[in-house]
Amino acid sequence: MNAMTRLLERSKELALLNSISALLHWDQETFLPRKGAAWRAEQLAHLAGLSHRLWGIEEVGVWLSECEEFGYPEGSDEAVNLREWRRAYDRAVKLPTEFVEECAKTEALSQHAWREARAISDFRVFEPHLAKLVSEARRKADFWGYRKSRYDALLDAHEPEATEEDLGVMFERLAPELSRLAAEGISTTSTHPAPPLPPAPYPVKAQQAFNREVAAAFGFEFDAGRIDSTTHPFCTRLGPADCRLTTRYDEGDFFCSFYGVLHETGHGLFEQGLPPEHYGTPLGQAVSLTVHESQSRLWENHIGRSRAFWEFWFPRAVEYFPQLRSSSAEAIWRRANRVERSLIRVEADVVTYDLHIVLRFEIERRLINGQLNVPDVPAYWNERFKSLTGEKVPNDRLGCLQDIHWALGAFGYFPTYTLGNLYAAQLMETAGRDIPGLDTALTAANYAPLLEWLRQRVHRHGMRFTGGELMRRITGSEPQEAAHLAYLQRKVRSLGE
Amino acid sequence: MNAMTRLLERSKELALLNSISALLHWDQETFLPRKGAAWRAEQLAHLAGLSHRLWGIEEVGVWLSECEEFGYPEGSDEAVNLREWRRAYDRAVKLPTEFVEECAKTEALSQHAWREARAISDFRVFEPHLAKLVSEARRKADFWGYRKSRYDALLDAHEPEATEEDLGVMFERLAPELSRLAAEGISTTSTHPAPPLPPAPYPVKAQQAFNREVAAAFGFEFDAGRIDSTTHPFCTRLGPADCRLTTRYDEGDFFCSFYGVLHETGHGLFEQGLPPEHYGTPLGQAVSLTVHESQSRLWENHIGRSRAFWEFWFPRAVEYFPQLRSSSAEAIWRRANRVERSLIRVEADVVTYDLHIVLRFEIERRLINGQLNVPDVPAYWNERFKSLTGEKVPNDRLGCLQDIHWALGAFGYFPTYTLGNLYAAQLMETAGRDIPGLDTALTAANYAPLLEWLRQRVHRHGMRFTGGELMRRITGSEPQEAAHLAYLQRKVRSLGE
Repeated sequence: MNAMTRLLERSKELALLNSISALLHWDQETFLPRKGAAWRAEQLAHLAGLSHRLWGIEEVGVWLSECEEFGYPEGSDEAVNLREWRRAYDRAVKLPTEFVEECAKTEALSQHAWREARAISDFRVFEPHLAKLVSEARRKADFWGYRKSRYDALLDAHEPEATEEDLGVMFERLAPELSRLAAEGISTTSTHPAPPLPPAPYPVKAQQAFNREVAAAFGFEFDAGRIDSTTHPFCTRLGPADCRLTTRYDEGDFFCSFYGVLHETGHGLFEQGLPPEHYGTPLGQAVSLTVHESQSRLWENHIGRSRAFWEFWFPRAVEYFPQLRSSSAEAIWRRANRVERSLIRVEADVVTYDLHIVLRFEIERRLINGQLNVPDVPAYWNERFKSLTGEKVPNDRLGCLQDIHWALGAFGYFPTYTLGNLYAAQLMETAGRDIPGLDTALTAANYAPLLEWLRQRVHRHGMRFTGGELMRRITGSEPQEAAHLAYLQRKVRSLGE
Repeated sequence: MNAMTRLLERSKELALLNSISALLHWDQETFLPRKGAAWRAEQLAHLAGLSHRLWGIEEVGVWLSECEEFGYPEGSDEAVNLREWRRAYDRAVKLPTEFVEECAKTEALSQHAWREARAISDFRVFEPHLAKLVSEARRKADFWGYRKSRYDALLDAHEPEATEEDLGVMFERLAPELSRLAAEGISTTSTHPAPPLPPAPYPVKAQQAFNREVAAAFGFEFDAGRIDSTTHPFCTRLGPADCRLTTRYDEGDFFCSFYGVLHETGHGLFEQGLPPEHYGTPLGQAVSLTVHESQSRLWENHIGRSRAFWEFWFPRAVEYFPQLRSSSAEAIWRRANRVERSLIRVEADVVTYDLHIVLRFEIERRLINGQLNVPDVPAYWNERFKSLTGEKVPNDRLGCLQDIHWALGAFGYFPTYTLGNLYAAQLMETAGRDIPGLDTALTAANYAPLLEWLRQRVHRHGMRFTGGELMRRITGSEPQEAAHLAYLQRKVRSLGE
């Protein structure tokens, strides 16, 4: 059997184990009983060790070298897989298996602690865990090595083309523009107020049915997926035809679960659009977190917060929530787009959203580079949040405990959200030029042309191109802020009309 | 490191993998999207292979022999674990790993086919799968070897002390007694009719809350467990502190989910009562399916169908289901105990229940021993069911497709249900003698003394004794039918009072 066949087999075996870990994680977030957490941590650590041993061993290195010497033609399926396998292998072998198992255990226990800390809004419950997570992330960076900063090494795991320096420059350029747009949006919202939603309750069952109908209209296939309920919404793939979304419900406000679902549906459509025949190899895998986020933000905001969207869906929404009869498509659209100071990132409007990312980027780079100590996180968070948005953070639950990412050991992940916003806007600009009659289709809630375009341009390629390369191929230009800022500017103006 | 330490480590590693498989199975029954079934089968097959390789390899045999030569004192923890490890090892090494993986895949796919067949009530959808399952079970028996019949080899996996011959004799003795009691019970039920439950609906949410309250009163710990919804109720343990029960809901009849939960709670209390410090070794594992079933039937029937039970719980039930106000504790008790011809085993009354087992025992021993062909199963089922109970089976869904067991590859499992009934009755007789004031406690829904007695006598021992040995130690006599038949006779008489 030749080296390529062996690599393909090993890659699929790894996919089996990783998809099993994904189920353990999903269950941990959805259904795991409180006392089951410790054993779950053992299970995840054990699987992480198995996976790491399967991929990070010498024979894999030998197979990779053999294949590289053989020299598959550039652009061939084999060459693409080889490139990504090499990258993953080089990163894997640098981490000792015991360390990988230790990290998996820390992460599983930290998630539990995070949930408890969040429930009672007390950072101190999470603090020792965060300290361990930061220390392990720093050790990880040291194992991997880096040119300029430890944070770069972590970024590389999530967005290989990004550096701390470039991001720093970008955010410095973006932040004042965002602040200006936020101020304009807030002022416009106050002169053209968005009336509050008609009175609650919005029963969970009705929310679930409405969410499901819209996700299905977008193209999400429920025979190969589902939606459940978690503290923190996410999308995960447990197999080639098993993609699961989660959201959270608030019977006082159906937007909470609804936009959660639209966002995760964007991720889910990407996963469901990957070529199943390549499942378990890089060609069957989403190219990067940034491109992933471009899909979720595109469906959530560019589609789900458009005027056309609510003009079509308002009558359906009224059937699920009869109290909406006293409202209107226009009012719901305004409500879904009102610009305001908000404490929670995942509930933030499109204009202020990236300011939340600026804050997280600042904190995590400082944590990793040793310029901020863990016990000082809440104070830093609250102070900087005030200076960025003018808003006072009343407690940790609504402040530094709101996101699960650090508890997952994910440092260097947040910037991909803003990059995803930039990509989404660029993609929509291009789609508007490429797809004849796109606006008409969207007005009629016919999402097939857009989904098909995304399938062809983005989804089906898996990791064939890097994220940046893919964007250049599709849009003809570098990833940049212009399209996003133009989109936000149009949005703010439309609110004043 | 000595051989015993290695065996303990390996046993716990195996427990990690097996508990992960248990989650995959649980998810398959509860939440897996339709198209996810194929990959789930791959995952389960892979884990089955890993487990089998971990346990069925030479080094384990060497460690076992070393420990056996060392000679741990009889009755010591080490000796008990050794005895059971040896048994498991000898069975494991006889099966080739590829065959184990193949069986795991067949089972996963069969369960899916069974669910589809059941949904449209068409045995033909399940038939090719059942044929494969039977053929694999026969091959398994051949690998394992047997003295008298292939069915014995399969029985040995579920109830090591049972033989086809003994069971045949027992069922022949039991069947006429059961038929006599059933006839008496049916006639008594017709002269003292049990009024139907007040009109539906019994909302799922109210059922869930009531079920939960009673399970908690029995002693089930929800911090270390949960209840979900499946086609076929079951209990599974996914870790030392993660025990999950399932049931199914019918808004027309709350008994369906309620007695399902009481039954599974009996299993769950056993699992939650096993010594956690021995988790992952035989000492931390339930002794046998029969003893397991004795626990579920004890809580479901001896407790949950007693007069005292409904006298206490009726007022609570009324709070969840206000329509019960027009009924009474007496009427609900009669309804829960009415003897009648029934099609579905899990919904059968205590008197006719074991007749369902007689039928399954007859069919599966014939399938395995080659005296019945798979395509003839529905005809055999329907004819024999008529002769045993007088009832005509209207379709496969209510006939031979009602149980999941064969789809799980479990042949030789059903007899443990009847043996469990016998054990339950013997245990209750002994508990009545052993526990001062048991009746008074039960009247006040104080289940702690009974649970504590079961914890001490049954649960905490794990596999220290064989099932038969344990029963002899507790009750002072061999497992036998007398106590169960006496219980049924008392039940039938009480219905005529």
